[in-house]
Amino acid sequence: MSEQSRITRVVEVIASRPYFYLLGPALGRLVFYSNLDGVPGIWVLDPKTYERVKLTREAIHSFAFTRAESREVVFTRDVSKGRELQKPYVAFVDKPEERVIADVPPARVLGISFYGSRVVYIGATAESVDLYMLDFSGGWEKLTTFTAVAFLTDFNGRYAVGHGILSGDPRAYELFIFDVESGRLATYTPRRGSVNLNPVLRGEQVLFESDFEGRKRLYVYDIGSGELRPVAFTHRDYDGYRPVEHVRFGWLGDGRVWAIGKRDGRTSLFVDGRRVNTPRGVTTSFAEVDGRFFVTASSLTRPPQIFEVDPSTGAIRVVVRNALPRGLQRAFRRSYFVRYTSFDGRRIPAFVVESAGNSIPGPTVVYVHGGPWSEVMDSWDPFIASLVVAGYHVVAPNFRGSTGYGEAFRALDIGDPGGGDLEDIVHAGKWAVQRGLASALAVMGYSYGGFSTFLALGKHPEVWKAGVAGAGVVDWEEMYQLSDAYFRKFIDTLFAGRRDLWRERSPITYVDRVSAPLCIIHPANDTRTPLKPVLRYMQRLAEKGAVFEAHILPDTGHFVARVQDRVAVIAPALQFLRRYFPVTPGQQ
Amino acid sequence: MSEQSRITRVVEVIASRPYFYLLGPALGRLVFYSNLDGVPGIWVLDPKTYERVKLTREAIHSFAFTRAESREVVFTRDVSKGRELQKPYVAFVDKPEERVIADVPPARVLGISFYGSRVVYIGATAESVDLYMLDFSGGWEKLTTFTAVAFLTDFNGRYAVGHGILSGDPRAYELFIFDVESGRLATYTPRRGSVNLNPVLRGEQVLFESDFEGRKRLYVYDIGSGELRPVAFTHRDYDGYRPVEHVRFGWLGDGRVWAIGKRDGRTSLFVDGRRVNTPRGVTTSFAEVDGRFFVTASSLTRPPQIFEVDPSTGAIRVVVRNALPRGLQRAFRRSYFVRYTSFDGRRIPAFVVESAGNSIPGPTVVYVHGGPWSEVMDSWDPFIASLVVAGYHVVAPNFRGSTGYGEAFRALDIGDPGGGDLEDIVHAGKWAVQRGLASALAVMGYSYGGFSTFLALGKHPEVWKAGVAGAGVVDWEEMYQLSDAYFRKFIDTLFAGRRDLWRERSPITYVDRVSAPLCIIHPANDTRTPLKPVLRYMQRLAEKGAVFEAHILPDTGHFVARVQDRVAVIAPALQFLRRYFPVTPGQQ
Repeated sequence: MSEQSRITRVVEVIASRPYFYLLGPALGRLVFYSNLDGVPGIWVLDPKTYERVKLTREAIHSFAFTRAESREVVFTRDVSKGRELQKPYVAFVDKPEERVIADVPPARVLGISFYGSRVVYIGATAESVDLYMLDFSGGWEKLTTFTAVAFLTDFNGRYAVGHGILSGDPRAYELFIFDVESGRLATYTPRRGSVNLNPVLRGEQVLFESDFEGRKRLYVYDIGSGELRPVAFTHRDYDGYRPVEHVRFGWLGDGRVWAIGKRDGRTSLFVDGRRVNTPRGVTTSFAEVDGRFFVTASSLTRPPQIFEVDPSTGAIRVVVRNALPRGLQRAFRRSYFVRYTSFDGRRIPAFVVESAGNSIPGPTVVYVHGGPWSEVMDSWDPFIASLVVAGYHVVAPNFRGSTGYGEAFRALDIGDPGGGDLEDIVHAGKWAVQRGLASALAVMGYSYGGFSTFLALGKHPEVWKAGVAGAGVVDWEEMYQLSDAYFRKFIDTLFAGRRDLWRERSPITYVDRVSAPLCIIHPANDTRTPLKPVLRYMQRLAEKGAVFEAHILPDTGHFVARVQDRVAVIAPALQFLRRYFPVTPGQQ
Repeated sequence: MSEQSRITRVVEVIASRPYFYLLGPALGRLVFYSNLDGVPGIWVLDPKTYERVKLTREAIHSFAFTRAESREVVFTRDVSKGRELQKPYVAFVDKPEERVIADVPPARVLGISFYGSRVVYIGATAESVDLYMLDFSGGWEKLTTFTAVAFLTDFNGRYAVGHGILSGDPRAYELFIFDVESGRLATYTPRRGSVNLNPVLRGEQVLFESDFEGRKRLYVYDIGSGELRPVAFTHRDYDGYRPVEHVRFGWLGDGRVWAIGKRDGRTSLFVDGRRVNTPRGVTTSFAEVDGRFFVTASSLTRPPQIFEVDPSTGAIRVVVRNALPRGLQRAFRRSYFVRYTSFDGRRIPAFVVESAGNSIPGPTVVYVHGGPWSEVMDSWDPFIASLVVAGYHVVAPNFRGSTGYGEAFRALDIGDPGGGDLEDIVHAGKWAVQRGLASALAVMGYSYGGFSTFLALGKHPEVWKAGVAGAGVVDWEEMYQLSDAYFRKFIDTLFAGRRDLWRERSPITYVDRVSAPLCIIHPANDTRTPLKPVLRYMQRLAEKGAVFEAHILPDTGHFVARVQDRVAVIAPALQFLRRYFPVTPGQQ
């Protein structure tokens, strides 16, 4: 009788595990982003006492990194009920006040930064993608308009920098440097076609990641001299590690460079090339406060926490604790990284989490990450964790197009979304069966993972016993028509302009072939993957008498951050799976 | 954090309260229908020990009354995943066996009865409404086809009887008598335009309820002689009670007549005119087993139970207990019957249940029953009970068109659905505010109540803070096109043929005026109120950016009987109300 509330309760416990991200130091304190109380907001922590205070009340959307010498904390708030149109706000680490910075038109914010009394950000509306500059006293102006997709990553009072697909080549990223004094927008790339990301400023020096020499390394470009040099570290640990990519990197106060390197879904932190001890799994952010080092870290089986790391001894101390109840922790039997062979012989990386509430072989969910330029790492994921505590083994493939395995791998689905990547997803399931892990397969994903789920059920109906598609794409053509300027550019980049593929890669083309029970979960106000075509997809399912359920979530957009909204997304998915893809009682 | 699972848990406790209905005696045992173990089925009880055994495994749909001398129990099962296409089954009170009776085409069953080795029922398909006769040995034939809506109520081996709208007058019901020997179908009415219902046979004598002399009374019609006489009772209690209608009535083994009379939403049981003591509230069924009397009864604040009543002493003993946990029972502050004045001065009956988890005045839900030819009585209702334990006061109007208050009142919405009845629903809310019970109003209903909810939100948006529409109608025109033969006749009867009203009385006409947050819950396989037009209604809500959520339930039809399906219907409704129509914490 109590099955439904038990599942909801378990999802609540998982979904209410807070996440953390460090924004940096401010007036000697540590500022971080968290949904510690259920609502995403900004917190400030005293490094001496570890006491923390929340600076914001209502939910926030995105944020700028802090400045050690500034009291201000800059963030954005969705003013459109999940439609991701935001306004910039400011709060203060040393007084309880928060306010809108200026009366700007709401926009999708693609990176925000501040220095001194000025804030810059890129804002996308239905019509255009623009660079804005604001003043804490309320003034604002539009600095320039981008003709391409661009993200702002830093601002130092003189220069605003970021990256974007500025040359029109969908596989390349160039840097942009906007000079506030001259009003001039410059584009920089070390080599045409290379991928250059996440520039961070120190005066006229621009630290960034580039693959122009083959693999991704860190470089410094000097705006004044136009000189480019690779970062040279004092210590050799970093070079020995040979990261494939970087989670993040930056300058310490004294001008040394720190970096979180990434290999096979796990990370290492380096300061001036020397490895710093961090918890097992993935370190997602780093901050230095008066010489003390703080990180956020988690793994697939351990929720995120904030830690302090002693750089000399390597001792790790928990700053904000976040543990699972022991009964749920036991559900995670083990997690591991694998590579399996896909249809064309290519080796595809994946993470596997085995549930202690299941036999081997047992019912297994292929979990498909979003993006597609994203990845499943050995870091906490509420979807995966919920599946495991509900009794399912999970295989999470980093299909071609995923980040974390180099630009050549990432670029494989540009011009081919729903092609080779879909085969990789299907082969993840086949691998799990062949290996003896899976007795039967379901597929589940959110966003691009929802798209892949719809497509997998329609193109490979024989593989799956059930599917759960969250915030998915069903029709690229109609989605394009409903998209704003930014997402039209995104779709054109993803397809490399090949609109002739839209129909063949749209799940609605295969809706009549779906045979497995399907659970659809969709935010009502989603502006990335709009609801409208999905309702048409449901019409078709209803007409052919398919077994499906649907949950449309009110006042919610694509970005689900509040705990209660996460529960509303995940709990119906698990109720559905328990019904149509049961873990047999004897296996519990 | 635990709000969502707490609400789900409360709904599980309410929805898992079993209901009971007595099918009668069989070989000295008592046969009853219940979802005691979560799945609706047939049980048999030993009257000496009160021990009970379930006869059926999978969920059943409808059933025939038993025969004291027969071991067989006849019922139907939905073989269409909730689409209400059924096949007839037989089980046995004295051996563990159940099987399909005959290989008939699945149909919507409108009454089933058996005698000896033969079973008769009316089955409606997309094309026609037919009378079938089956043999327990597997033979079957179609006896006749009805050109109108008809319900079978009894069969005695020679005659099959029932009622229907046989003359074409939408306000009148005539009896039909089918003679199996001659194959002749006769229609009988004491007076043209009168309402004649629920005939029960004893040889050639037909006991039925009729209003042909003004108010509803019980009569016996003799098929052989054609003679009609009012039932004359030995005792006078019944005549003094003057029931407005009857819940049910029948013959005892010795030829005396029993009847459950109804007034103002409560009942009294009479045997040969003498009042028999029963629990407070509503008695829904009665059975005599070897001279011992059993009833099922409940109230708005007490879940259903089976009782034995001693006819001589009036002593009442619980046969199958069904109590709420004390904490939830305390939520029911009190319930009472009222009459309020509607827009045209007409007095409308209603039930009110006050929640102890709410202040007075406090947030109040106007609960709209289905039908429309049905009513809220002082009997257990899982929707109302769930609302009350979640902290809401409930006002449940028996708007014009409801049963229980005479044929003139019932007929008021024939030719006017969504007209005067809708005003009565709005005025129920206004009454609750004026009386000081309601601080704010929401509206909620299922089926015709879902239709009324949609229409109330669109035509009177200023009245409501939120609405929950379950399995509702949004477009009469499209619904008619999607309906089977039976439901087309139902719609024509309801509108008295006035198709010119369809557009004006369709909620989709007013969808752009809906301003309150709306929760839509709809079974995917609903064949009474199909999903398709509701998806179109959602499209419109999405286009105008309305605040709405939706839950489409898989493998479920209009008739929601399994506990887990009831939870899936009610829990999202309460989660939604707690968010958009909160009971303020200080009132808890």
